[in-house]
Amino acid sequence: MTITTDAVADLRAALPAPDSVLTDPDLLLAGSRDMADLCPAGVPLAIVRPRDTAEVSATVRIAAAHGVPVVPQGARTGLAGGANAVDGSIVISLIRLTQISVDTTARLAVVGAGVVNADLSRAAAREGLDYPPDPGSWESSTIGGNVATDAGGMCCVKYGVTSRYVAGLTVVLADGAVLHCGRYGSERAAGYDLTGLFTGSEGTLGIITEIVLRLRPARRPGRTLAAVFPTVAAAGRAITGITGSRVVPSLLELLDRTHLRAIEDYRPSGLDTGAGALLLAASDTGPGAQTELDIMAAHCERAGATELHVATDQVEADALLAARRLAHPAMERLAAQRFPGGRGGLIVDDVAVPHGRVVELVEGVIRIAESHDVLVGVVGHAGDGNFHPVIVVDLSDPAVLARGRAVFDEIMRLGLSLGGTCTGEHGVGLLKRDWLERELGPVGVRVHQAVKSALDPAGILNPGKVVLPAHDGS
Amino acid sequence: MTITTDAVADLRAALPAPDSVLTDPDLLLAGSRDMADLCPAGVPLAIVRPRDTAEVSATVRIAAAHGVPVVPQGARTGLAGGANAVDGSIVISLIRLTQISVDTTARLAVVGAGVVNADLSRAAAREGLDYPPDPGSWESSTIGGNVATDAGGMCCVKYGVTSRYVAGLTVVLADGAVLHCGRYGSERAAGYDLTGLFTGSEGTLGIITEIVLRLRPARRPGRTLAAVFPTVAAAGRAITGITGSRVVPSLLELLDRTHLRAIEDYRPSGLDTGAGALLLAASDTGPGAQTELDIMAAHCERAGATELHVATDQVEADALLAARRLAHPAMERLAAQRFPGGRGGLIVDDVAVPHGRVVELVEGVIRIAESHDVLVGVVGHAGDGNFHPVIVVDLSDPAVLARGRAVFDEIMRLGLSLGGTCTGEHGVGLLKRDWLERELGPVGVRVHQAVKSALDPAGILNPGKVVLPAHDGS
Repeated sequence: MTITTDAVADLRAALPAPDSVLTDPDLLLAGSRDMADLCPAGVPLAIVRPRDTAEVSATVRIAAAHGVPVVPQGARTGLAGGANAVDGSIVISLIRLTQISVDTTARLAVVGAGVVNADLSRAAAREGLDYPPDPGSWESSTIGGNVATDAGGMCCVKYGVTSRYVAGLTVVLADGAVLHCGRYGSERAAGYDLTGLFTGSEGTLGIITEIVLRLRPARRPGRTLAAVFPTVAAAGRAITGITGSRVVPSLLELLDRTHLRAIEDYRPSGLDTGAGALLLAASDTGPGAQTELDIMAAHCERAGATELHVATDQVEADALLAARRLAHPAMERLAAQRFPGGRGGLIVDDVAVPHGRVVELVEGVIRIAESHDVLVGVVGHAGDGNFHPVIVVDLSDPAVLARGRAVFDEIMRLGLSLGGTCTGEHGVGLLKRDWLERELGPVGVRVHQAVKSALDPAGILNPGKVVLPAHDGS
Repeated sequence: MTITTDAVADLRAALPAPDSVLTDPDLLLAGSRDMADLCPAGVPLAIVRPRDTAEVSATVRIAAAHGVPVVPQGARTGLAGGANAVDGSIVISLIRLTQISVDTTARLAVVGAGVVNADLSRAAAREGLDYPPDPGSWESSTIGGNVATDAGGMCCVKYGVTSRYVAGLTVVLADGAVLHCGRYGSERAAGYDLTGLFTGSEGTLGIITEIVLRLRPARRPGRTLAAVFPTVAAAGRAITGITGSRVVPSLLELLDRTHLRAIEDYRPSGLDTGAGALLLAASDTGPGAQTELDIMAAHCERAGATELHVATDQVEADALLAARRLAHPAMERLAAQRFPGGRGGLIVDDVAVPHGRVVELVEGVIRIAESHDVLVGVVGHAGDGNFHPVIVVDLSDPAVLARGRAVFDEIMRLGLSLGGTCTGEHGVGLLKRDWLERELGPVGVRVHQAVKSALDPAGILNPGKVVLPAHDGS
């Protein structure tokens, strides 16, 4: 590889395929950020679209030689600014890395970082296999991004989050070297758990280009329960009851009234918009499903559910889940409607607390929202204790935005005080960096910085995300 | 804390409780090694026995000030030399850190590193809970050691290895600072997965003093099947069949003829010593147990099992497992008997391969043993693809020992060539350092060295284990 004084020329020489190096100003602007409305984004020098690991490696070598930062991107559905460009950086879009190979004997899939979650799920399903993690964005987000943020999803309460399924990784390091970690087909790999270290590191330690994922035998269709509650707090008590029982639901999702109304307004589907909250619960354990559903229903009744409805068939069950999956676009629409003269937007929070503290969290969120006169909807993977308080703001009104930020900070503070974590699945990115520092404490921050600078001594990998270097004053 | 010119005096001042600082030469020699017969051990300067994290921290601060290495130890049941002292080191024995606190609501236990696995299991059982990982040494090995090596066990085929259960850690770092990682009660913790990084790092990145462990609702007693095979290869085919089916056994263990005879000789329990191999399989899924057992039995028959026996009650099932658990002491006795004039010993190998390669591994081990005229018994967690070829040697006879080492190396080479890993659960320690290097390749080694030197720049934490620093020539 030749290194000249012109980084873009070097990139064009190393990545000769058409449309591999984009420098059109409109494209640079359009591709500079993810979906976190509140996080700043710079303008990159170029967006490159490598076709394989070798081209990613070449790109990083060129970036390193020029001392230019690199910012990896997937589908840019992130909600924490983790994929936002910094000024003068090279954005590496991994969306061309779309190979999928499913090994039915080993129950593994080898996939490129740019494979869309739903495409992998469908490829696995064709072989009678299942890839469980199903983040809200599963129809658009990439596996690379899912792994980089250790994404969760609806069925993770039973089947675990993304990291549970990552058996091995191909990672391009800060100097362009290619690391393979994990062992294909073995449950174990000797030495330090590098696979675990890169998973969830949001592109700050290396760029994940290929992933070996564990698959499971396909799940059996189960039974789904919808329980209506007068208040979010009552639903919270049901959640605590269910998660404290022997039953492990295959799904346990909460929608509050704000979400029910927003979804019904967006795509009418018969949701009870007078309810305080709706809890969706499912069991997929075959013959035991009805017993498990009965136990969950009993907990709902005890907590004050006013209505219980068991889906009579899979079509109805799927419709309930489809409604749940509309939460984000529905709330985006609600925000636009709420501030017709301004620019309605969302601050999507992401906080996970221990099971026993769920009621305190949801009650606290309501109290915080009321005290600042800000509309906050609560939705979440209740079975994981992982909630998304969605703060509705006018991005063009500094006063409203300031109130929204205050609500965000108070919710974060509450979550940590309940023993929770500042991000359950969306990642730290830019949005939660300060809160990560509080969660980790000074020793934890120092260890993060030590690991970061060991693997990225020049600080060119997704700079500013997750943790700042020690000399930046943290 | 005062630092003088005398490290032992400093230790005595910082750890005033009786018997906290041992320097008696006999005790130093006796406490200098684990159970890996083949690995060298030096003589420590002192063995300290701190009572809590603060005393561990004080010890490490003193060691750092004096530039003296520290070697953490639990019950010293390790099989890879990971707990072996180096000359002039301070051995930190964690066996006094024995507090156990079980939180039934959160289904968590907070335990000191020195808690014996079986003591935790019993404490959990008293609350109707279960801590699954059950390494062979569970009656004596400590949770700290289990976490430091990411130990497996018999039920891990279904329930996963130790790392699956580690929710958080307290770690004393190389400068004596105390790190808390993970979040109590939350499934998730933001930032890099430090909990995963320290788990399995064998005391080379920090000293684990306290562990937050996930517990499960107690398992239901299940059904156990014993299948007799004419050859190990036939048993291997049954293993491949079962692991490729929908059934996830709660136990799938292999014993070869050498083990059957050694165990029967050590504690007669009615094992069929004429069999080529015995496979133990179990299901604990309640009402579905019989169906699962039937499927497993069918796979055994198809693979050529000559006899199938289902335990009629839990007493009989427990007796079969108890026989399996005698494998190690029985083989130690066999080694002593085999070399009456010498010093019989074992090289216990530990290799894990993908499910589809099990038959190739076990057949290969037999071929290797025969070609060197060395007795090798095969036992293992078959469902995990994790096998322990046990090489019987005369430690006093260099020629026999050399043949044993050659067998060990050939088995390692075979395991890696089958896509396996050089250690399934015993750890790298000293025994597998060269093989870890081969498994990782140069880039993987470099990343290991970078992480090690980031967290232990002076190289005082368990030096020589897992990976050598870059300047040592690797």
